[in-house]
Amino acid sequence: MDTAAARRRFESSPIARLATVRPDGAPHVVPVVFAVSGDHVYTAVDHKPKRHQRLQRLANLAFEPRCSLLVDHYDHDWSQLWWVRADGVASIVDDPAQGSEGRRCLTERYPHYHDASPAGPLIVVEVRRWAGWDAAA
Amino acid sequence: MDTAAARRRFESSPIARLATVRPDGAPHVVPVVFAVSGDHVYTAVDHKPKRHQRLQRLANLAFEPRCSLLVDHYDHDWSQLWWVRADGVASIVDDPAQGSEGRRCLTERYPHYHDASPAGPLIVVEVRRWAGWDAAA
Repeated sequence: MDTAAARRRFESSPIARLATVRPDGAPHVVPVVFAVSGDHVYTAVDHKPKRHQRLQRLANLAFEPRCSLLVDHYDHDWSQLWWVRADGVASIVDDPAQGSEGRRCLTERYPHYHDASPAGPLIVVEVRRWAGWDAAA
Repeated sequence: MDTAAARRRFESSPIARLATVRPDGAPHVVPVVFAVSGDHVYTAVDHKPKRHQRLQRLANLAFEPRCSLLVDHYDHDWSQLWWVRADGVASIVDDPAQGSEGRRCLTERYPHYHDASPAGPLIVVEVRRWAGWDAAA
């Protein structure tokens, strides 16, 4: 699967899984909503109040900025399976006044953000490699 | 979400995402089909011939056996979102004559395995922690 095809399929999903590494060296993975612009993937920490304002994913990325994002498609017919992975390096934009491009992309993509655009920390992943697999290919 | 509820929801999905750590310390994530028995999660490397017989996930787990498995549910209505994560330690059973419990569980769960039960390396994850999040809770 070439890079353009991988990116298109990645963008077709409303959800991806963000894999990071904990400071103790164990892996961690959470689902995220996201937006893609070129080789940048944006995801924001919810604006809703959280018990833990500083989430594990943020602590992990501060320790190890390399991360991996996965989109996959399951079907009972296994010849229809595919997945796309974006490996990259993350930076965290804490200031709600910054990261406007990412916040705009997220707000455009998810109507949920129309009333309250994502004001929490923004994760900006610079994708270094798009990889994909398609059972039918 | 208590452990029993987390395990039930995890089992309700035909697919999970397996997060591991590469020998160079970067995270890695792939979708997997799986079966659960108590606090063990089983997943097998496909019996179909692969270009890379020794997959990245196996190399990663040989280096760092800690891993994390994620099941999530997306809905346009964000009050319906939930996810469950199983953090554990993996061992790899290379011998097709071993790991019969795991291979049996996988074959029971996926009709695709009825004709050819999973004969490749079996990954056995001993789950140390079931964690979950439910937007509606």
